[in-house]
Amino acid sequence: MSAPAGPFVTFEGGEGAGKTTQLRHLAGRLQRAGRPVVTTREPGGTEGAEAIRRLLLEGSGERWSPLAELYLFLAARTDHVERVIRPARACGAFVLCDRFHDSTRVYQGIAGGLGLELVDRLQEPALRGARPDLTILLDIDPAEGLRRRRSDGNASRFDARDLDFHRRVREGFLLLARREPERIHVFDATLPEAVLADEIWRLVSERFAPDRA
Amino acid sequence: MSAPAGPFVTFEGGEGAGKTTQLRHLAGRLQRAGRPVVTTREPGGTEGAEAIRRLLLEGSGERWSPLAELYLFLAARTDHVERVIRPARACGAFVLCDRFHDSTRVYQGIAGGLGLELVDRLQEPALRGARPDLTILLDIDPAEGLRRRRSDGNASRFDARDLDFHRRVREGFLLLARREPERIHVFDATLPEAVLADEIWRLVSERFAPDRA
Repeated sequence: MSAPAGPFVTFEGGEGAGKTTQLRHLAGRLQRAGRPVVTTREPGGTEGAEAIRRLLLEGSGERWSPLAELYLFLAARTDHVERVIRPARACGAFVLCDRFHDSTRVYQGIAGGLGLELVDRLQEPALRGARPDLTILLDIDPAEGLRRRRSDGNASRFDARDLDFHRRVREGFLLLARREPERIHVFDATLPEAVLADEIWRLVSERFAPDRA
Repeated sequence: MSAPAGPFVTFEGGEGAGKTTQLRHLAGRLQRAGRPVVTTREPGGTEGAEAIRRLLLEGSGERWSPLAELYLFLAARTDHVERVIRPARACGAFVLCDRFHDSTRVYQGIAGGLGLELVDRLQEPALRGARPDLTILLDIDPAEGLRRRRSDGNASRFDARDLDFHRRVREGFLLLARREPERIHVFDATLPEAVLADEIWRLVSERFAPDRA
């Protein structure tokens, strides 16, 4: 008899929302509860996907058209799903991923102008066996998020886009959350870090009972 | 009033069929007839697509899964269509391309096991404004084609696959030609180079009358 598939939890939200920080908090708590955890990120997560990530993040904002960018994200995602996410879930590990398919739906589909329907249609084959069970959406005003990112020194190509784009990103994520309230849970990213970590832990505990083996 | 779109002609076929050679012959004849010609190739054709081409051709045959490979080809194709093929056609030039979407349909779809339907569905957005008017299919027995490639010193990752794969590639191209006989014309690639060049020139002349301005 094989183990049940491990839970797959994604962290989503705009720039500077604190996704990476909260993902680390959750991973630490799961490990202290004795659960195997695999943490990963997109774009990236495998050698091949990291090579694609470099193609995506280097150069000017006009290097790739939205459609070319979408295909590159989906190539990276496919590699990541096949080599990291599916094998980790198959052995029963919790998989925590910093950005996943909702980012593509929002950045390229809703805010980037390709349309959600096209993105969903093109990315469906890449998601086989890797649909998130739970998504933590960290919601923040984009002006505040960008301010945080700049003070971190973590500027990337996307940060250079104007505030209006990031407002569409925020609205896009909230739209997805309204459509799938069971999967996507919205958190106020301006809460103190430890308070937010507690709230996320409470939700994950209720959903997956990770402290009971 | 804008010029009519320039004709878009693709060269397809297995390894060692002589696509590049015949493409050059046709380009030379078109130039001598006074027609603007843009020659290009896939995967590649733009700076971004060449970077993706390097990702695809380097490394072992198992570096990318068939689906990841498909998305990478489609990212490269999107860049190539948007930056080279559409602009060249828009100014009335003949565009000659060494491999295009039929290669993806055959290598990834039919011979690679993803299925033609999935490939056609995923690549449809990448082809907007760039459907070939005419496709020259150079048909050759794969054993002979691979022998030619090895004697050229032009080995690539695909050449390492077994002969059975290349037989499926040949059958795949011939299947597409039977389905679209108006677009895809089959030529015997073992004919002497100059004879083949004459036959291709005759077809292109009949179809597009390139020697009448």
